Amino acid sequence: MDYSRFFSDDVPSFLRSPVREIFRKVDLASIYSFAGGYPDASTFPLAEMEGLTRQVVEKYGARALQYGGTQGVTELREIISQRYDVPLERVQITTSSQQGIDVCARVFLNPGDVVLTTYPAYLGALQSFRAYRAAVHRLPLEDLSANGKAKLIYIVPDFCNPSGVTMSLEERQALVEFARRENLLIVEDSPYRELRYSGESIPTIYSLAPERTLHLGSFSKIFAPGFRLGWIIAEPELLEQIFVCKQALDLCPPVFDQYLAAEFMGSGALDRNLERSISLYRDKRDYMVSLLEKYMPDGVSWTHPDGGLFLWVTLPEGIDTVAMYDSALATGVAYVAGSFFFPDGSHRNTMRLNFSYLAKERMEAGVQLLAAEIAKARSQQMIDG
Amino acid sequence: MDYSRFFSDDVPSFLRSPVREIFRKVDLASIYSFAGGYPDASTFPLAEMEGLTRQVVEKYGARALQYGGTQGVTELREIISQRYDVPLERVQITTSSQQGIDVCARVFLNPGDVVLTTYPAYLGALQSFRAYRAAVHRLPLEDLSANGKAKLIYIVPDFCNPSGVTMSLEERQALVEFARRENLLIVEDSPYRELRYSGESIPTIYSLAPERTLHLGSFSKIFAPGFRLGWIIAEPELLEQIFVCKQALDLCPPVFDQYLAAEFMGSGALDRNLERSISLYRDKRDYMVSLLEKYMPDGVSWTHPDGGLFLWVTLPEGIDTVAMYDSALATGVAYVAGSFFFPDGSHRNTMRLNFSYLAKERMEAGVQLLAAEIAKARSQQMIDG
Repeated sequence: MDYSRFFSDDVPSFLRSPVREIFRKVDLASIYSFAGGYPDASTFPLAEMEGLTRQVVEKYGARALQYGGTQGVTELREIISQRYDVPLERVQITTSSQQGIDVCARVFLNPGDVVLTTYPAYLGALQSFRAYRAAVHRLPLEDLSANGKAKLIYIVPDFCNPSGVTMSLEERQALVEFARRENLLIVEDSPYRELRYSGESIPTIYSLAPERTLHLGSFSKIFAPGFRLGWIIAEPELLEQIFVCKQALDLCPPVFDQYLAAEFMGSGALDRNLERSISLYRDKRDYMVSLLEKYMPDGVSWTHPDGGLFLWVTLPEGIDTVAMYDSALATGVAYVAGSFFFPDGSHRNTMRLNFSYLAKERMEAGVQLLAAEIAKARSQQMIDG
Repeated sequence: MDYSRFFSDDVPSFLRSPVREIFRKVDLASIYSFAGGYPDASTFPLAEMEGLTRQVVEKYGARALQYGGTQGVTELREIISQRYDVPLERVQITTSSQQGIDVCARVFLNPGDVVLTTYPAYLGALQSFRAYRAAVHRLPLEDLSANGKAKLIYIVPDFCNPSGVTMSLEERQALVEFARRENLLIVEDSPYRELRYSGESIPTIYSLAPERTLHLGSFSKIFAPGFRLGWIIAEPELLEQIFVCKQALDLCPPVFDQYLAAEFMGSGALDRNLERSISLYRDKRDYMVSLLEKYMPDGVSWTHPDGGLFLWVTLPEGIDTVAMYDSALATGVAYVAGSFFFPDGSHRNTMRLNFSYLAKERMEAGVQLLAAEIAKARSQQMIDG
């Protein structure tokens, strides 16, 4: 039967995530994966789960298994409110921070509206904006004449996915000034903020412009991604529409998981765990950089991020990381081609490498395989050229 | 700051759930609530949670806390596939069956498209359809001339929320014939199907027309609503677009919860629990009906459903359940006014009563309060008239 008549006008704009497609086909454990933004499984509170469950059952009883409020359970909202020093009415729990992005797109964007962002940009955000047929344009700030329908700025100021870059205070202030001048909302996506391994913490954009910023947080990197939980901090007037929208999306965030998160955070276990994670990831970042220095052919460069989960790698002009991908995967190593993070598909000589997921003892073999693929592509290029 | 310029053209069509609004303001435990479609908390596997968590941790380890596939974890999809006798590739796990409805609206509906449904209709579905600016028209089947842009039929064939009505086999066959003739998709929303207390099970619409039906299931009534989990069974070609859409919605359903559900179902605990729930709800349905018979004033009638969670009550013409609501809540009893389930706001003399949530020993006092409110409204009406 032909289903084409049934699909909405948005469907042709749906973008597939190459990361999600890789993991649909390949067993992650069977390869050296630098592809997904997966935390190191050793940071998960696996040993604590049984105790956390017991606590939740004892403390909250049947409430933990019943429907909950659309805003999220009060106990968890209170913890977020205290931790980030914002009033309770500014905290909405979301079913993943991806939902936070999507619900912003749903509440704010019409087809043809423009979202301004840095290039490269987080793929999941591009998926959401594209799915509502919004156009994504690149910041810098000068060129707003082409952006008459601009409404939102989407930005990952701390340890950007995929570039690893962190905005300085001056850049944040300039961005806020620009947003105020042009009357734009800012979606500040901040899943990695607490994963800083070096340098000084920089104020959030939300703290600089609370009146026009929606600050998105995630439990995926500080608790575990298997619970799909995040939060939005914003003006009550903005949250009110998100609240009504979310009723129709899924009624409420997962209740049991919210209480698990509240117990994990409230008991101080999260902060102890976070300290261990930071130390682990700092070590893995440094080790990854040392491996790239050791094995990568000449002409390859990479970022050295102060936090987060990703390095951004630039290969010599003319090497195509999309074309190279199948061959690399066949040898057992996965990455994400950088051009997927550019709405115009440019920068085909770049790639995003994740350093958090792969166990440290497997990283060297993975980098060696990757370096060999790059060297192969390079000599192929020399022959072709 | 004035945010009006930022909201999308869909926002004015967002519909608030009066049920969710009630529970935002009122502590459920402090009132006699016949309002929400909440299961009886005694059916929740609270005592099993610690053991289930231990099993999940032992059996699946860190996988249970990591990101998972967008389609849902294979173990749970396999259980659904076997239980409902459909191939694995036809099973997509959703983050609640509300998300199942919403993702169908998102993938299939353009502004102005028409959804056909029975009146009264499930409020959460009306919220989703309205939020995409689709029009909702009433079945019957004759009047399709007005429905040139009809694309979907939305139907709850078993123990409909809110009416409690179940479609006969002949009605299902006629609906399928109609859908085939007019080339429409059918969204069969089936959260209550397993909660049958009397009468014989009737084949699903999906089994009659698998090529054009999306069958939505829910774990909320057979496991617990605090886990936001549901499923869609449909043709792979339809699921493929839902899969891509869902990547941008929340990446994947909650992984830990999916493994808990898989362990709960796989061990046979779900079927044992379901048997107890059915027996409990049958008893509560009968008790509720006996209380209505005992206390309701003349001229009030109600349905006697074979399953599900709701009775539909019709009051004498002229009594307005919307107007009566605040006064009823002030005396401590909550219901949902029937007109909320009619897109045209009609049938203001009806109400939906839930009989699953309130503890049996509190039901009599609740019905007495409600009957007194109705008697008061009726005598007011006589004075006014």
